[in-house]
Amino acid sequence: MTLQIGFLLFPDVQQLDLTGPHEVFASLPDTAVHLVGKDLAPLKASSGLTLVPNTTFDTCPALDVICVPGGAGVGDLMEDAETLAFLRRQADHARFVTSVCTGSLVLGAAGLLRGYRATTHWASHHLLEPLGAIAVRERVVCDRNRVTGGGITAGIDFALTLAKELIGEQEAQAVQLLLEYAPAPPFDAGSPESAPQAVVESVRRRFAGSIARREEIVARVAAGF
Amino acid sequence: MTLQIGFLLFPDVQQLDLTGPHEVFASLPDTAVHLVGKDLAPLKASSGLTLVPNTTFDTCPALDVICVPGGAGVGDLMEDAETLAFLRRQADHARFVTSVCTGSLVLGAAGLLRGYRATTHWASHHLLEPLGAIAVRERVVCDRNRVTGGGITAGIDFALTLAKELIGEQEAQAVQLLLEYAPAPPFDAGSPESAPQAVVESVRRRFAGSIARREEIVARVAAGF
Repeated sequence: MTLQIGFLLFPDVQQLDLTGPHEVFASLPDTAVHLVGKDLAPLKASSGLTLVPNTTFDTCPALDVICVPGGAGVGDLMEDAETLAFLRRQADHARFVTSVCTGSLVLGAAGLLRGYRATTHWASHHLLEPLGAIAVRERVVCDRNRVTGGGITAGIDFALTLAKELIGEQEAQAVQLLLEYAPAPPFDAGSPESAPQAVVESVRRRFAGSIARREEIVARVAAGF
Repeated sequence: MTLQIGFLLFPDVQQLDLTGPHEVFASLPDTAVHLVGKDLAPLKASSGLTLVPNTTFDTCPALDVICVPGGAGVGDLMEDAETLAFLRRQADHARFVTSVCTGSLVLGAAGLLRGYRATTHWASHHLLEPLGAIAVRERVVCDRNRVTGGGITAGIDFALTLAKELIGEQEAQAVQLLLEYAPAPPFDAGSPESAPQAVVESVRRRFAGSIARREEIVARVAAGF
């Protein structure tokens, strides 16, 4: 039976949170990948890239995997009743309830990470615990049927990990080879532990405004639990 | 002055060839990223994802960086006079003439890699030499102002390497940290040298038809040089 995998699509999504795992899942045999919007109108990712939903909250089939990517737009989603209801509805029967990057904050706001080990982008990691999750600093975190990936590029590692669960290690390795995923970053600056301190400070400054806003939203959401 | 970076967009592009580096470049300060189509009509990537051009061959500004992603659609491009003319026109003044994955075959068909060291996806690597390039099996290959990346996911390493050239190492590291690019593949199957033999064979079988077709195209193009 065709595997049904759906990504939540929303304005100001971080497109690589979605496009990395999308390429992995779309390379699996007998798999349908859905981009689920509130409606079918094209949306702008935070980078300016246009993404186009191919189904909606109402028309989306029952998913084997629901995946929430992250990005600047997650703040609004955390308080959007319609989005949270869609995620809870899909989570009721999905084999895997998943996220990449700050998508886990939306799962958390929907109450779907309470008591689950989970991860998110390093700059938002302190927001997991107030939402009831057990925060873990790992690239990909699996706890029962919750699978969460770290920041942005972790989506590729997340998707290959999940592909193994869905269809087996050999097929997942074939996708890794197909995508020539033998990464060789030119610098060792991919985490706040390895990056030069000045680089960490510059990125923290860049994030400061959006993190402060998210802290307020998380406080409101947590108060409503 | 705003840095102008343009990706060639075409039907059956491998979307991650483009979306990986797009996220890197769009994260740089004072940078405009263009998706250049023949016209503005939305296009389907090989995975089914819809991508939308935001400029055309006629309206695209003079680019600092022209980048050709790869994918199933490159065969047709290699013999498309309009596309090849656009690339040559941009290459005349661009600071960097670049590609990801099999995009380098299109640069080669345009005559833009003659005598340059270059790389491409491992399964198409033997097609570089007939197009006049000096084929090199490295993740990212820089030769004067030609910068070519290997298969698909190599686009992220390619873009960070180029970002350093464009605006300096510290800013490029900040983007790596922002994207939390500290890759941790769950398997060691990202190259034909490291993947299990059965996996390599299965992927070679999957590619066989499209590679055979590309070999014919490359032979015709090379005969016309």
